[in-house]
Amino acid sequence: VTDSKTIGIGLLGLGGVGSGVARVLTEKGEQLTATAGAKLVLRRVLVRDLTKERDFPLPANLLTTDLDDVLADPSIDILVEVLGGQTPANEYILRAVSAGKHVVTANKDVMARYGPAILEAAAEQGVQVLYEASVGGGTPIIGPLQRDLAANEIIAVNGIVNGTTNYILTRMAHDGVDFAEALKEAQDLGYAEPDPTNDVEGIDAAYKLAVLASLAFQAPIVDTDVYHEGITSLTARDFLYGRELGYTIKLMAMARRDDHGIEARVHPVLIPVDTMIAKVDGVLNAVEVETDLAGKVLFHGQGAGAMPTTSAILADVITITKGQMERPGTTAVAPTTGETSVKPMADVETKYYIRMNIAERPGVLAQITRVFGDLQISIASVIQKEIDFKALRAEIVIVTNRARESSIQNALQDLAALEVVLEIGTMIRVED
Amino acid sequence: VTDSKTIGIGLLGLGGVGSGVARVLTEKGEQLTATAGAKLVLRRVLVRDLTKERDFPLPANLLTTDLDDVLADPSIDILVEVLGGQTPANEYILRAVSAGKHVVTANKDVMARYGPAILEAAAEQGVQVLYEASVGGGTPIIGPLQRDLAANEIIAVNGIVNGTTNYILTRMAHDGVDFAEALKEAQDLGYAEPDPTNDVEGIDAAYKLAVLASLAFQAPIVDTDVYHEGITSLTARDFLYGRELGYTIKLMAMARRDDHGIEARVHPVLIPVDTMIAKVDGVLNAVEVETDLAGKVLFHGQGAGAMPTTSAILADVITITKGQMERPGTTAVAPTTGETSVKPMADVETKYYIRMNIAERPGVLAQITRVFGDLQISIASVIQKEIDFKALRAEIVIVTNRARESSIQNALQDLAALEVVLEIGTMIRVED
Repeated sequence: VTDSKTIGIGLLGLGGVGSGVARVLTEKGEQLTATAGAKLVLRRVLVRDLTKERDFPLPANLLTTDLDDVLADPSIDILVEVLGGQTPANEYILRAVSAGKHVVTANKDVMARYGPAILEAAAEQGVQVLYEASVGGGTPIIGPLQRDLAANEIIAVNGIVNGTTNYILTRMAHDGVDFAEALKEAQDLGYAEPDPTNDVEGIDAAYKLAVLASLAFQAPIVDTDVYHEGITSLTARDFLYGRELGYTIKLMAMARRDDHGIEARVHPVLIPVDTMIAKVDGVLNAVEVETDLAGKVLFHGQGAGAMPTTSAILADVITITKGQMERPGTTAVAPTTGETSVKPMADVETKYYIRMNIAERPGVLAQITRVFGDLQISIASVIQKEIDFKALRAEIVIVTNRARESSIQNALQDLAALEVVLEIGTMIRVED
Repeated sequence: VTDSKTIGIGLLGLGGVGSGVARVLTEKGEQLTATAGAKLVLRRVLVRDLTKERDFPLPANLLTTDLDDVLADPSIDILVEVLGGQTPANEYILRAVSAGKHVVTANKDVMARYGPAILEAAAEQGVQVLYEASVGGGTPIIGPLQRDLAANEIIAVNGIVNGTTNYILTRMAHDGVDFAEALKEAQDLGYAEPDPTNDVEGIDAAYKLAVLASLAFQAPIVDTDVYHEGITSLTARDFLYGRELGYTIKLMAMARRDDHGIEARVHPVLIPVDTMIAKVDGVLNAVEVETDLAGKVLFHGQGAGAMPTTSAILADVITITKGQMERPGTTAVAPTTGETSVKPMADVETKYYIRMNIAERPGVLAQITRVFGDLQISIASVIQKEIDFKALRAEIVIVTNRARESSIQNALQDLAALEVVLEIGTMIRVED
């Protein structure tokens, strides 16, 4: 359809990332041509508003508000989708695939929900849908899972994949500020949205984990399969007590496959301070992949931003241009013989940190530890943190050995029903 | 030549890594077939001794001592070279390329010296030579540079690429042991060879840096272009003083390109303790790539070992099998318009830590600091560490601001000539 030495690109969306892609295609054209082995030419850009002022102005004839203009253009080989959000991006991607276009997307929301269906449609159509930019911004993780670690069985994928919450947790850990203050700061710096729900409730991280887990385990895992819990209930106290125990707190996205099935969960975790993941600070992201041959491999870098995301998008564009992926779309949809459904959270086993306020009088600890004993939960340590002798209250932290989530939930219910338990503060899972 | 659904593999060498490759090809055959889209079959193995007992025994008819048996076998598509050492591996690889075989090699010694010539020969022959396993063991770094970061200009590649020295330095830093003791331990654990020269003098790291820098800067940089300096003169004292200043000591391999040319050097470096690279401990490796679009990206994992290296080798085998690399061999030989020769070490600029013993009497510091001043070297701090009043000696540490290596070398000569300088202990470059 097009000259073999030119690859036509259609861009869906011209926000921060879209402008970045347009800018780099224009300003680094020569270098990209040398690398890709073909000239990459921006042919059409879908926008909502033709008259809006842009950071990187483009000739007016490139812009259109009609998707059909882009789909019908035979000189366009690859569509780059940077609209964000599940709708209408999902539908646009499927229409592009039906029109025989390759697609490069940065859209985690779409890939987390519709990825398996989109990749199946792409395989049928013989086109490629690549999505490196959907997780980890400029940090390569999808490509390494598809290619560099291809000989490995993936055992686990664990990471910090949301920069906003990692910024907040870093401030809370290093500077003792509380959640509300750190969030406000993140909003002022533009790291957090005015409505921060998607970030602070772990929803964004759950999207990304669904994408990673699908690929790692070759199973159709979608966002609704991923348990998620946010960081809004963490207090400065938990960081303090955690540090005393040798831990810091991170919002971790964790997927693991073993003989008992697949786990996929996002929640705050106490992790040992001396691990590499614990040192990932500020808005940076890191993903650790655990494999059978290569051991653990960590990828660390910028998790967002126009230029890092553009780097990932253009890597995919170059990959398609070089025809590097011979079997389009098959990755992440190939059925496996193993387990492909995700375990309910109730079946997960880990360790637990529980902070609570109790009445300070003889026999109270015995009542509390009996709750754990009755549920076969073994306690690793009980630490009395503060005593208010006047109010006859004490704060204690209990750390358990490995236990089932369902047992811990039962324990929390039973504890709350005890008269001597005044308040259950925080429950944080511990991974060490 | 071969059935389109089968790829024949010839193996050159059956030591630890060769046995690992043979084992995984055999035991994970089904998974590899599904991933690669073709059956990977081990056809012939070149060994020195047909009768030697092997960890992973192979049918006798697979083994041969004659390279021509392997090269002449039309059913062999890919040669995996794991002989190690520059000779005869270099010649074998070139003969394989001439015979029209693709080559996957783990051989840093060969790629560091003959990589540009081999890749040029491969491009002419239309075959591929891939070498992910030559740097960083199972940690992907070559693939990400070739593919995932392809849209970026690479500004710098800095890393810890020798596990043996990193183990020794980690022991010295954390446990205060001296070099000789840590080396002995590394030898006992099998991390260091009986003759540790290649590791402890930075030669192995220089090989790997030549490979990385060639690829990153698309310039034919070979091992002899890389300045290298080992870790044998570091003392427990330097770690102690370094820590007081907020640094740890690592053997860093560093390549950088700027408007003034390319730097490529391997030597001990004081780096801030709170950086990710500073936390890379034991035999692990890490490489940080600094780019124009994606910012800094860090790759961290196992730097050696039979199974991690096998992971990297088989990733390359799968890449060739899937026909993912359309322009064979061009990477790392394509000439660039920019500077491709490496700066002499004398022209490098960085900061310096100098530890020395001086006479303890009035006016001595003035004499010493005048040496620096005369050479236009600005001093960031002078710290008196220990005074031996009886012997009238003191130990001082001077940290400079950025200065040229040649000026520092002149300063060290001038200092040594001063009567009041009793001994120059250590000079360590500082990167922060």
